[in-house]
Amino acid sequence: MDSSTSSRLEGMVSADRRRVAVIGASGYGGLQTVRLLQGHPTFSVTFLGGERSAGERWSSVCPFLPLADDPLVESVDADRIASAADFAVLSLPNGLACQLAPQLLERGVRVVDLSADFRYRSLDQWSQVYVQEARHLSRDDAELCRKAVYGLPEWHGPAIAEAALVAAPGCFPTASLLPLLPFLKQGLIDTDGIIIDAKTGTSGGGRVPKQAMLLAEASESIAPYGVIGHRHTSEIEQSAQEAAGSSVQLQFTPHLVPMVRGLLATVYARLRDPGLTAEDCKTVLEAVYRHHPCVDVLPVGTYPATKWVRHTNRAMLSVQVDTRSGQLILMSVIDNLVKGQAGQGIQCLNLMAGLAPETGLPLQSFYP
Amino acid sequence: MDSSTSSRLEGMVSADRRRVAVIGASGYGGLQTVRLLQGHPTFSVTFLGGERSAGERWSSVCPFLPLADDPLVESVDADRIASAADFAVLSLPNGLACQLAPQLLERGVRVVDLSADFRYRSLDQWSQVYVQEARHLSRDDAELCRKAVYGLPEWHGPAIAEAALVAAPGCFPTASLLPLLPFLKQGLIDTDGIIIDAKTGTSGGGRVPKQAMLLAEASESIAPYGVIGHRHTSEIEQSAQEAAGSSVQLQFTPHLVPMVRGLLATVYARLRDPGLTAEDCKTVLEAVYRHHPCVDVLPVGTYPATKWVRHTNRAMLSVQVDTRSGQLILMSVIDNLVKGQAGQGIQCLNLMAGLAPETGLPLQSFYP
Amino acid sequence: MDSSTSSRLEGMVSADRRRVAVIGASGYGGLQTVRLLQGHPTFSVTFLGGERSAGERWSSVCPFLPLADDPLVESVDADRIASAADFAVLSLPNGLACQLAPQLLERGVRVVDLSADFRYRSLDQWSQVYVQEARHLSRDDAELCRKAVYGLPEWHGPAIAEAALVAAPGCFPTASLLPLLPFLKQGLIDTDGIIIDAKTGTSGGGRVPKQAMLLAEASESIAPYGVIGHRHTSEIEQSAQEAAGSSVQLQFTPHLVPMVRGLLATVYARLRDPGLTAEDCKTVLEAVYRHHPCVDVLPVGTYPATKWVRHTNRAMLSVQVDTRSGQLILMSVIDNLVKGQAGQGIQCLNLMAGLAPETGLPLQSFYP
Amino acid sequence: MDSSTSSRLEGMVSADRRRVAVIGASGYGGLQTVRLLQGHPTFSVTFLGGERSAGERWSSVCPFLPLADDPLVESVDADRIASAADFAVLSLPNGLACQLAPQLLERGVRVVDLSADFRYRSLDQWSQVYVQEARHLSRDDAELCRKAVYGLPEWHGPAIAEAALVAAPGCFPTASLLPLLPFLKQGLIDTDGIIIDAKTGTSGGGRVPKQAMLLAEASESIAPYGVIGHRHTSEIEQSAQEAAGSSVQLQFTPHLVPMVRGLLATVYARLRDPGLTAEDCKTVLEAVYRHHPCVDVLPVGTYPATKWVRHTNRAMLSVQVDTRSGQLILMSVIDNLVKGQAGQGIQCLNLMAGLAPETGLPLQSFYP
Repeated sequence: MDSSTSSRLEGMVSADRRRVAVIGASGYGGLQTVRLLQGHPTFSVTFLGGERSAGERWSSVCPFLPLADDPLVESVDADRIASAADFAVLSLPNGLACQLAPQLLERGVRVVDLSADFRYRSLDQWSQVYVQEARHLSRDDAELCRKAVYGLPEWHGPAIAEAALVAAPGCFPTASLLPLLPFLKQGLIDTDGIIIDAKTGTSGGGRVPKQAMLLAEASESIAPYGVIGHRHTSEIEQSAQEAAGSSVQLQFTPHLVPMVRGLLATVYARLRDPGLTAEDCKTVLEAVYRHHPCVDVLPVGTYPATKWVRHTNRAMLSVQVDTRSGQLILMSVIDNLVKGQAGQGIQCLNLMAGLAPETGLPLQSFYP
Repeated sequence: MDSSTSSRLEGMVSADRRRVAVIGASGYGGLQTVRLLQGHPTFSVTFLGGERSAGERWSSVCPFLPLADDPLVESVDADRIASAADFAVLSLPNGLACQLAPQLLERGVRVVDLSADFRYRSLDQWSQVYVQEARHLSRDDAELCRKAVYGLPEWHGPAIAEAALVAAPGCFPTASLLPLLPFLKQGLIDTDGIIIDAKTGTSGGGRVPKQAMLLAEASESIAPYGVIGHRHTSEIEQSAQEAAGSSVQLQFTPHLVPMVRGLLATVYARLRDPGLTAEDCKTVLEAVYRHHPCVDVLPVGTYPATKWVRHTNRAMLSVQVDTRSGQLILMSVIDNLVKGQAGQGIQCLNLMAGLAPETGLPLQSFYP
Repeated sequence: MDSSTSSRLEGMVSADRRRVAVIGASGYGGLQTVRLLQGHPTFSVTFLGGERSAGERWSSVCPFLPLADDPLVESVDADRIASAADFAVLSLPNGLACQLAPQLLERGVRVVDLSADFRYRSLDQWSQVYVQEARHLSRDDAELCRKAVYGLPEWHGPAIAEAALVAAPGCFPTASLLPLLPFLKQGLIDTDGIIIDAKTGTSGGGRVPKQAMLLAEASESIAPYGVIGHRHTSEIEQSAQEAAGSSVQLQFTPHLVPMVRGLLATVYARLRDPGLTAEDCKTVLEAVYRHHPCVDVLPVGTYPATKWVRHTNRAMLSVQVDTRSGQLILMSVIDNLVKGQAGQGIQCLNLMAGLAPETGLPLQSFYP
Repeated sequence: MDSSTSSRLEGMVSADRRRVAVIGASGYGGLQTVRLLQGHPTFSVTFLGGERSAGERWSSVCPFLPLADDPLVESVDADRIASAADFAVLSLPNGLACQLAPQLLERGVRVVDLSADFRYRSLDQWSQVYVQEARHLSRDDAELCRKAVYGLPEWHGPAIAEAALVAAPGCFPTASLLPLLPFLKQGLIDTDGIIIDAKTGTSGGGRVPKQAMLLAEASESIAPYGVIGHRHTSEIEQSAQEAAGSSVQLQFTPHLVPMVRGLLATVYARLRDPGLTAEDCKTVLEAVYRHHPCVDVLPVGTYPATKWVRHTNRAMLSVQVDTRSGQLILMSVIDNLVKGQAGQGIQCLNLMAGLAPETGLPLQSFYP
């Protein structure tokens, strides 16, 4: 451990800046968090944690993202993190954050977890959905699960601001819930028969090499996967039910798209009042998101492309109605690594630090 | 016109070979037809027709697909075609084939049309769906529309074999109908609430340059388009209704995927008997397609990628059931330019010539 | 013309801000300029000019890049521009800027031209290289050509700062000259036998649809084009000769790569002193670029990927030497639309306004 | 081991068919060999060998490439192979074929090896170039190395026809040597200063997952790698020297291109006689390749795209001359997995079996 390096990092941080530790820094979520915090007006990265890359200089891990003073990646140690940082962003595989987070919370570090470990209010449900991870762990942190705040800032802003532990939502739930929740909350759609047909780029599969994510395999192809029972189904249903105040059963089908980033959810639901027009439905969305700078509602007839939000923390929503059948079609695009992961994590950090949610976050894409 | 060239082409054709004219040879549909007929054991291309490229040598239009004796592309003339060919494949923009086809039929040339001009049994319906094209034409060929055979070989084989005029289905209808029709025909699913979420590569947009199809625009992005009221909706509904024997109202949403070829339809429908399992449903598909070499039914739990059928005339189908909700999920992949267009056209030609439907057609993809 | 809109735009600009007109705003160069100037601390876009899109609201041209107050795109009028802006960035096809620039200069507007019209000190040479454009024009602005400053900020910073008219370099010359010039200037390499093998994404072909740039055509393929005599050859040679103080004859071969953005130049030259090592050569580059924040020199053995500089105004250079043969290999990557076009234009604007060259420009990519 | 399956496979093979074992069947080289042999008029695959997938049904390894009777993948055993096959294609990592090949040769099986193990006539040179592999092996098969025939069919056809062991060339050497050898053989170019700037799709990296080959990493990017001292340099030089009859020192730089397949070599050399035109040089190529159906020489000014030869066993060559400098530019495209690997292996098999070299091999691409 080269504490002098970290001290130097910390030494650079002036009194009014907040110090952030990024754990899992060389995966896509961590990398993205580090990148987004470059140039942030308030936060500074003061600790870089990693397992595989511990002991290496940052420049050897990521030659493409030069950092001032080329810090060391350190192994993960709660005391070191607590001495170096006020906040921690955990970008770790499922089943690891639940081991580290309690140690950090004890030491007064506020935590944003990008994994699924704290997304369920019920530990039992987590154990059912994440069976494999649960098998190797004996979690007894049911209370912490209950206390953790689900980090969808447009819906839980005040709770996030006060939270010690925030569970950032999955990428598919983020894209799906943003357009759905307003209609569920107002009881405008049937709570059964909802279909979410979602499409994601391959970066959602992470940076650890897998055959299916090779360019040679994934390129020039689209395919469904995890049909029936994908883990995000229950995560979406949990929030949908809270909004609807009743049971919701969804069909959620993810697809792998030959692109790096971007996530599109096409959502189908039946309107309870078949007289509602697309313009009416657009008004429903606008009423909710008018003052939320990270969510855009497009004009009726303008359908969003994932490229429009690439590298931004913005969601773009569009709505259409088939008046023949009273079918509602919601379309929602995000960048799966930004609004779907690291950016949303920082949006939560901003709220936790009393800042405007969009502080320091990119909202405009580079096109094309 | 260099008739000597064409004569030479014809001269090469021995008595037992069938002569085919390809009209619109330099677009993707025509190109693909020419390519697929290279090496066909029975058919020979004896006439290449085009407007923009008329008078040019084939090698200057398509340096990447060398043809023996480098024939001329000729302008489109019914007499010339009739003297050179027994069959014609028309790969023309909508609204042109309906002008040329009658002339060819009169002269005894049997026609496979890849456009939408003869896909509707009712001329009135065509005029409603293809409003723009109808505005510039005064079609009075309602009877020809009624007589034309819809060229889905797995469902209309005998009629295709006898037909003078075959209307090859659109790419989206092909991928959607293959898995849907067995369930509709047997009354196993509700005829309302069917949702088709379809994804296609950009070659479906044709070879005439459009901004949205530029690599710079379409790459690294997925987006819906033609939401509500895409023209293929009514084409799918027409066949669905014939199979169901009752009215069917579908939700069809196409999406543009950053790849050249491939089309995936993810189809959602409600089972009437919620007790049916995925294996039961797979049996339903197998019973229909067992003897159809161009349709494969995958094991339950194996989900098809468009790459698996690229450059082939094969459709791969997979089925899954959510027993929580009785929801049926059908997945279907094709190559939009082969089984979705030119290959299916040749499959029809094969039937018309008394050959096995798959004659000369590729059924195995090159992977990766 | 809705001058109230423009007034409103201008009204938003406080006294210490500089007003910029972007002409050709809906092409890739213009779009990129508008995007990069969003959030710039000093410049504000106060005029959007376009031909095809004149009279349209910005949001209908670019729904993906929302601008405050949704300004109108206006037709190009020198008086209007002069009243609305202090600077103009011209992003027009070759042969148009030379008509507009003099009118703007007369009215006191300082101009950065992204086209090739003023890249040659000699009008005669321009007329020889841009034969087609020259045929339709009778340019008599030889003196303006001589006065225009070649906008490669790392090499002509002081002249750019004073210039009324800056000709931003082409994307290939930018990537090629940055690594080559230090070696030519110091006489370290032979001035003949230099080979530049360059690779670019398709966005360099512009936004006007062309068949070769369709995703269906350009994807899954790489090909050379413009072999021998590409226009950028003479542009590179002009600067190379100025640096070398003698005649330079280069071999320049561009290739089209299936990606949106990014440009890599692999440059081969013979070292005059075969004893120089890769580390020595790296030192040569570092000595020149140490204080230039938009140029990075990588460690020996680290080879740059275009993705590392995507959406940034950074060039990354790497050098290697084959000690068997005394061959020098220079590798240089840029984003063709940023450091290769619009970003470099703004880098010039920054200098013209007395700012640090990198002001407001992104220097770190989003990875992956 | 389920020998009944294999017997069944063998049982299917009639007397006049030749039996081929494919070893390493689930990697890209093996997969491609299996695919290409489907439909081959003479060869039948009668043994599928693999390590990771031994004991699995083929359909579970490759659901996308259905084989008749769904054979088992077997573990690699020389006796089993010898009883099942007349020929073996080895598609294994470097350092494995040299262990298996002698056992097969002893048992009378003729071998085509797709790895580098037998590409060098000198075992010593192999040991220097493949240092890592050599460290773990104590090869004493120098004589076998000398006897093995380098499998470039256009140059060593008669020797291949007689060979017991053929070493199929690497993909880069194949693309580079085809255009270069005619000029070296005739002494038309300088033997020093030759530069090969090569570009390949990612499938060349194989099917074992590597981070750099993930779509998320490799997509939207081009980068050089292995600059100076790539292993294929010495392989190219060995053949170049044999043709030239003197020492040849090349600069070879590979680049990774964001596409699945395809390899382009752009080769720069100095003409000894500066009076030669591009047409003259085209004639040089045509004279050599006129009767070789797998090599096409394009008209001067037509530059090949890798897509033009995708999924084919064809090389397309083009030549250009810069008369200013006497520089020769050769362009050569192949499909790295077909003419660059498995297809060329089968081309060798064809010769070994007394067939025309192109028998059963695809020569026309599917476009686009």
